[in-house]
Amino acid sequence: MSFKLPAYREPDFRQPRLLDCPDVAVRRVEKAGVAPDNFHATTIFPEYYKLGGEWKLLSQSRMDCTVVLGGGGNLEAKEFRRLQPGDMVAVGRTEDGSEGIYVHTAGFRENPGLAETFAFRTGRSRETSYSRDYDRLYELLRFEKDNGYIVWVLGPAVVFDSDSKKAMISLIEDGYVHAILAGNALAAHDLEGAVLKTALGQDIYTQESLPDGHYHHLDIINRARASGSLGEFIGGLAADASLICACAKNNIPVVLAGSIRDDGPLPGVLADVYAAQDAMRAHARKATTVLCLATQLHSIATGNMTPAYQVVDGVVRPAYIFSVDVSEFAVNKLRDRGTLEVTSIVTNIQDFLVNLSRNLVKG
Amino acid sequence: MSFKLPAYREPDFRQPRLLDCPDVAVRRVEKAGVAPDNFHATTIFPEYYKLGGEWKLLSQSRMDCTVVLGGGGNLEAKEFRRLQPGDMVAVGRTEDGSEGIYVHTAGFRENPGLAETFAFRTGRSRETSYSRDYDRLYELLRFEKDNGYIVWVLGPAVVFDSDSKKAMISLIEDGYVHAILAGNALAAHDLEGAVLKTALGQDIYTQESLPDGHYHHLDIINRARASGSLGEFIGGLAADASLICACAKNNIPVVLAGSIRDDGPLPGVLADVYAAQDAMRAHARKATTVLCLATQLHSIATGNMTPAYQVVDGVVRPAYIFSVDVSEFAVNKLRDRGTLEVTSIVTNIQDFLVNLSRNLVKG
Amino acid sequence: MSFKLPAYREPDFRQPRLLDCPDVAVRRVEKAGVAPDNFHATTIFPEYYKLGGEWKLLSQSRMDCTVVLGGGGNLEAKEFRRLQPGDMVAVGRTEDGSEGIYVHTAGFRENPGLAETFAFRTGRSRETSYSRDYDRLYELLRFEKDNGYIVWVLGPAVVFDSDSKKAMISLIEDGYVHAILAGNALAAHDLEGAVLKTALGQDIYTQESLPDGHYHHLDIINRARASGSLGEFIGGLAADASLICACAKNNIPVVLAGSIRDDGPLPGVLADVYAAQDAMRAHARKATTVLCLATQLHSIATGNMTPAYQVVDGVVRPAYIFSVDVSEFAVNKLRDRGTLEVTSIVTNIQDFLVNLSRNLVKG
Amino acid sequence: MSFKLPAYREPDFRQPRLLDCPDVAVRRVEKAGVAPDNFHATTIFPEYYKLGGEWKLLSQSRMDCTVVLGGGGNLEAKEFRRLQPGDMVAVGRTEDGSEGIYVHTAGFRENPGLAETFAFRTGRSRETSYSRDYDRLYELLRFEKDNGYIVWVLGPAVVFDSDSKKAMISLIEDGYVHAILAGNALAAHDLEGAVLKTALGQDIYTQESLPDGHYHHLDIINRARASGSLGEFIGGLAADASLICACAKNNIPVVLAGSIRDDGPLPGVLADVYAAQDAMRAHARKATTVLCLATQLHSIATGNMTPAYQVVDGVVRPAYIFSVDVSEFAVNKLRDRGTLEVTSIVTNIQDFLVNLSRNLVKG
Repeated sequence: MSFKLPAYREPDFRQPRLLDCPDVAVRRVEKAGVAPDNFHATTIFPEYYKLGGEWKLLSQSRMDCTVVLGGGGNLEAKEFRRLQPGDMVAVGRTEDGSEGIYVHTAGFRENPGLAETFAFRTGRSRETSYSRDYDRLYELLRFEKDNGYIVWVLGPAVVFDSDSKKAMISLIEDGYVHAILAGNALAAHDLEGAVLKTALGQDIYTQESLPDGHYHHLDIINRARASGSLGEFIGGLAADASLICACAKNNIPVVLAGSIRDDGPLPGVLADVYAAQDAMRAHARKATTVLCLATQLHSIATGNMTPAYQVVDGVVRPAYIFSVDVSEFAVNKLRDRGTLEVTSIVTNIQDFLVNLSRNLVKG
Repeated sequence: MSFKLPAYREPDFRQPRLLDCPDVAVRRVEKAGVAPDNFHATTIFPEYYKLGGEWKLLSQSRMDCTVVLGGGGNLEAKEFRRLQPGDMVAVGRTEDGSEGIYVHTAGFRENPGLAETFAFRTGRSRETSYSRDYDRLYELLRFEKDNGYIVWVLGPAVVFDSDSKKAMISLIEDGYVHAILAGNALAAHDLEGAVLKTALGQDIYTQESLPDGHYHHLDIINRARASGSLGEFIGGLAADASLICACAKNNIPVVLAGSIRDDGPLPGVLADVYAAQDAMRAHARKATTVLCLATQLHSIATGNMTPAYQVVDGVVRPAYIFSVDVSEFAVNKLRDRGTLEVTSIVTNIQDFLVNLSRNLVKG
Repeated sequence: MSFKLPAYREPDFRQPRLLDCPDVAVRRVEKAGVAPDNFHATTIFPEYYKLGGEWKLLSQSRMDCTVVLGGGGNLEAKEFRRLQPGDMVAVGRTEDGSEGIYVHTAGFRENPGLAETFAFRTGRSRETSYSRDYDRLYELLRFEKDNGYIVWVLGPAVVFDSDSKKAMISLIEDGYVHAILAGNALAAHDLEGAVLKTALGQDIYTQESLPDGHYHHLDIINRARASGSLGEFIGGLAADASLICACAKNNIPVVLAGSIRDDGPLPGVLADVYAAQDAMRAHARKATTVLCLATQLHSIATGNMTPAYQVVDGVVRPAYIFSVDVSEFAVNKLRDRGTLEVTSIVTNIQDFLVNLSRNLVKG
Repeated sequence: MSFKLPAYREPDFRQPRLLDCPDVAVRRVEKAGVAPDNFHATTIFPEYYKLGGEWKLLSQSRMDCTVVLGGGGNLEAKEFRRLQPGDMVAVGRTEDGSEGIYVHTAGFRENPGLAETFAFRTGRSRETSYSRDYDRLYELLRFEKDNGYIVWVLGPAVVFDSDSKKAMISLIEDGYVHAILAGNALAAHDLEGAVLKTALGQDIYTQESLPDGHYHHLDIINRARASGSLGEFIGGLAADASLICACAKNNIPVVLAGSIRDDGPLPGVLADVYAAQDAMRAHARKATTVLCLATQLHSIATGNMTPAYQVVDGVVRPAYIFSVDVSEFAVNKLRDRGTLEVTSIVTNIQDFLVNLSRNLVKG
C-alpha cells in the first residue's frame, strides 16, 4: 500500500461568523527584538490572517513567534530576537477569527466518531503497539524521498552502535535524508568511529574499552581542528565511513549546533545558539517529515520550529514529526512542550534505525 | 560464524589448599521447612562439596537454597519450604573450601587482561552498543535450538503488538522455544488477540480502541472458563493464531503462574505461587538459555531459579540469561538481585522479537 | 484549612429518560465460576441498577466484576471465580440506563469550565507541581484518621531506608494506618532491618554491605519459620523496631500476599493468590483512602479492587487513591489499567514518607 | 555531628619510582586552538607534573583539557579552543609518573577493607538508602556556607513548583548559594512565577492551566527584553519573589547559558556557548560543592569543568558533586561521562529542595 497525502479541508470562510470578522490589527515594533503588547503568538497549526477582507494563510510557521506583515500582504513568523523597528506585528489573542486571526486545528483530522466512556491504554508507552506506526512510516518515507523534505534530528547514541550507524549511513546514501540537525558530540563520535572504530573509546561493535580510549574523541577533535574544516579532515575517509562523510559525499546539509557540553568544538560547529536556531529553522521551514532520535535538547528545539503543515506547490499538506526514544518522559516532553502532532515511539533508536534500513534500503 | 561453547576450567583440586580441606559438615532438619543454623545457601555459580575426600559438583543449582545431601552422595539444591525432617543440610558459610564448600566463580571467564584506570560508559544502558550482543545471541540460539533448552519468560507486552506476536509465534514454530513461563495476563491477551484481534480492547495492529473493548479480555477468560480447560478452548483456533495455540500444537510446555493482579483466572493458571515456583523450576533446572522479556516479576523469579551453569552429558557449560526491557532499572534489577551473569538489552521487546525472528526464522 | 468531603450529586432519576428505563435483566449462573453471556462488568464508578422500578446503588464495588442480585434486592460485585450455580448475574452492556444499568461518572466532579485550545504540561510527570497535592493529602489524612479507612500498599523499598522506615512506623503509631497490603519481601526485609539493621544485607543507614549480608534475609526467614508464626517471632522485638512490629502492637491488619519471587516464605504469607485477593479486598471494600508506594504488582491489584466511592453511614463519598513512584510509567500504568481516579506523584517514596511523617505526626 | 574535611594524603614522592621520573615534556602550540600531538588530557583527579625535579600539583583543574606550562612553573588546565600559538603544552599519556605526570586517584580514599565475593544492590537507584547521604549533605552544606564555594546547577523544574521554589529562595537568602548556573528557561519561568504565579501557564501551586497561559512566558520574556536588562526588569519585584530576585538582592552571580531551545532569549543570556562555558568555569574553578538538579545538559557540562579537589589556602580538599534527578539514567550519565566522584540521589528535586530548606534554614 503506498502513501497518500490526506486532503486538507480549508475553513469555510463563507460562514457568516468568519465573513464578519475584521481585518487583523498590527502594531509597530519600536525597539529591536521587542514585540508590541498583545502580540499574537503562533501555534504549529495553520493560521489565517484577515487582510483587506481576505483570509490569508501563514506559511513556514513555527511555534511561539510573532507574525510580521510585510509588503504585499506577505506574512512571516518571526522570532522576537529578529524583530526590527518598523516591523508591523499582528496583535490579538483570540483564535476564532474575531480579531482577524483564525487558528485551524482540524484541517487534517478524520471524523473521530464516538468516544468510549472508558478504554484501557490510551497513552503511548513501551506497551503501545507500534506495528502500524512502522508500516505507515515506511510508506511515508518512500513518498517523502521524492516528494518531501526529510529532516533528521540526531543524538550521539546513533553513532555509538555499529549496526545503527550503518543503517543511518545506508538511509543517507539511499536518499532518505535531506538534512541532519545535530551537535558537536554526534559529529565527534561519528568521526571517532570512522577513524578508530570507537565512540568515547569503546569499540562500537565489540563493546571493548580500548587503552587510552578516553583520548579518542579528543584526538579526533584536535586533528579536525588542525585540518581547519570538517571537509578537509574527512578528505581521506571513505564515503560510508561515517554519517558526516556520507552527507558530504551526497551534499546533504548538516547543521551542528554548539552546546555548553562540547569538547573542542569541531570546526563548523555553531557557537552562537541563536545563529544555530536560524540555521536549523532554514531546514525546519521546509520540513515535511522530521525524525527526532535520542536527543531531548535538539528534538524540542526542532519541534518548536516545525509547523504541523507545509504549503508545497500551493497545496497544504501535513508535516509529520516522529520522536523516538527509550524513555516515555522524553518522547512525551516534546508533546508537552507544544509539539502536539508528534508520533512517539518508545524504543531503542538502534533497533529503530535497523528496522528502517532493512525495510527501505535496497539490499 | 557458528557458536562454540566455552570450555569450563575446573578448579585445580590438587592444589594443597584444597587437598587439605575437610569434608563438608551436614546437620539434620528437625522441623519441616526449617534449615539448621549456619546452613549454606547456594549461589548461581558452580559449587563443589567435599564428600569422602572427593569434591563433588552440585548440579541443577539455583540461588538462595539449601543443599541437601542424599543417599549415594547425591546433592540437591532445595528450597527451605521443601525441607523435610531428616534431610541432611550442608552447613558452613565460607566459599573457599575451608569448610568443604568451594564456590567457583571463574570457570568460564576469559583472562580479563589489564584494566584501565578510567573508561567512559562502563555500565549498560540505552546507549550501549548492542550489535554484537544480537549477533552472538543469534548464533547461540541456533546452537541451543538443537543442543540446549531455551526457556522464555514473557510479560504481556509481547502480545500487545501484532508484529511482535507474529515474531514470537514464528520462533515457537521454528523450534527456538522449549518452554514458556508467564502469567494469566499473557495468556488472556494472547487469546483475546487470537479471537478478537485486540489486547485489553485495543486492536493490536491499528491501535484502535474498540467499542466495549474493555469487555474483551473478560469475555475471553469467561469463555475459557466455560470450556473447562485452555486446550478445549483453543480447539477451534488456528495453530498460528496465538502463542498458546502454537505451543499446544508443538507440545511446548507453558507454565502460567497466578498473581494477585489476575482477572479470572484462566483455567490452568496455578493459584499457589509455590506450586508455580516448582513448575517453573522444573524448566529452569535444565535451562541452558533463558530470555526474559518485559516482566520484572517473572524475570526475577526465574533468575533466582536459574544457575549460571548446567551439566549436560557430563560436561559443564554456561547457562545464558538475557533480560530485555525498555527500562535500565528493570534489567539492572535482575543483576542487583543476584543474577550476576545476565546480558541486559535495553530496548522495546517488540523490536527485539522482530529482530530475532527475521534473523533466525526461515522466511 | 481542614478537609471537607465533597458533596455527591446523585443522578436525577426523575428525568424521563431514566424513568422509562426497564429493570435490569439477570441470568442464572449454570457452572461455578462462569458468568452468563452478556454479563455486565463493573467499573470503579457508582453504578445504579433498576430493581422493581427503583434505582439501587451498588456498594463495595470494584473493577471488572459481575454483579449478583441477592435476596431482598441486595447487590454484590462478585469475582468470576466466586460465582456459584444459581447466582443471578446482571446482564447488559450499556451504561446509560437503557438496560437498567446506570454508571454515574460525574458524581463528584466540579464544573470543569471552559477548556483551552492548548495548554502546556497537561500530563503528570516529574515536572508537575506537587505542593498542593501534598497539602491536600495532609488534610485528607487528618480527616481519614478518624473518619475513614486508610489502606497502605507497600513495596519493599519502604524498608530499605532508615528514615522512610521510621516515618512509616510513626504513621502507624499515630493512627494513620488502618491496614497494610504487601508481600513477603516487605515483611522479610522489614524484620531483617529490625534484627540486623540491614535490607538484603546492606545497612539501611550507612549503605554498607555487611559480611555475609546475603544471608541476612534467609536467616531471618528461616528463624521466623522456626518460630511457627510472625507473632511468635517478633515477640522479643521492640514495637518500633519495624512495620510488622508496630502493626502487631497496634492491631493493624497486614495482608502478605505470596508471589513467585518469594524466598521462604515467611509464616503467614498467603500462598494462594486468589485467597490473597480475597484478603486484600476485605480491606479494599471499605477503603476510603489508598496509598500505593513503590510496587506495581500490589498497586495495580489493589487499584482493581478499589471503587472510586464508598457508602459510609448512608452517605456516598469519594475514595481516594494515591500512587507514588519514581517512574512515570509505573504511576501512569495504574491509570492505564482502569484506576482512573488516581492521584499520581512522581518521587522517591523515601522523601514522600518523610514528608508525611513530618507534617502529620506530632513530634 | 559537624562536618570535618577528610585529610589529603599526598603521594609519597620519596619512593624511588617517583624520584627517578623525568621532568614532564612540553611541546609548543603552532596553530591557535590546536594541541600538539600526544598532548596530555586532564582528569578530575589531582595531577602532579614534574618540573625542575619537583612534583607540582595542578590546581583549578577540569576534565579533558590540556595543561599549559606558564612562566614561573605555573600550570593551567586549558581548553583546546583557548590554546594560543606559543603555549607550551604537557605531553605524555601515562599517569604513573614515568613521563613526569602523576595522577593521584586515591588521595581521599579510606581503606576500603575486604570486598565481599557477592553483595546485593551495589548500584545506586531509586531503592538505595539515602538517609545518610542527606545527613552528610546537611553537615557539608553548613560547613561550606562559611568555608567553601557552593555552586548550584538548576533545571527549570526547580521553579515549576511552589514549595521547591520557596525552598530554593530560602537557601539563597540563608547563604547556602554562592553561584547559580542555569539557562534561559529557568530564568524565564522563575520570573513568570514571580509576576503571574505560573510556569508555562500553569499555576505553580494549584496546577491550573490559566487562560492564555501559553502566552505567559513569552510576555515575561518580551517585557524583560523591553526593559533592556534583567536588573531593570526585576526592579519592582520583591526580593523573595523569585530565584533571580533573591540572587540579585544578595549579589549571588547567576550564569545563564543559551541553548537552541530558547525562546527570546532574556537579556543577559549568553548566546555563545563557549563564552558560556568560560563564565560557568569561572565558578566551577573554585567550587567546593556542586549540586546539580534536574538538568542533564547543564549538569554534564558543569561536571566536566569541576575537579574532584580544590586547593584552598594551600590545603588540598575534596570537591563534592551531587546529582539529583528522578531518573537513574540521568544521574548515572554524569558518572558515565567521567564525573566519577559524584553522589547521585534518585528523587524528585521538589522533595530534595524542601528537605534541604527544612533542615538547613532557620525557620
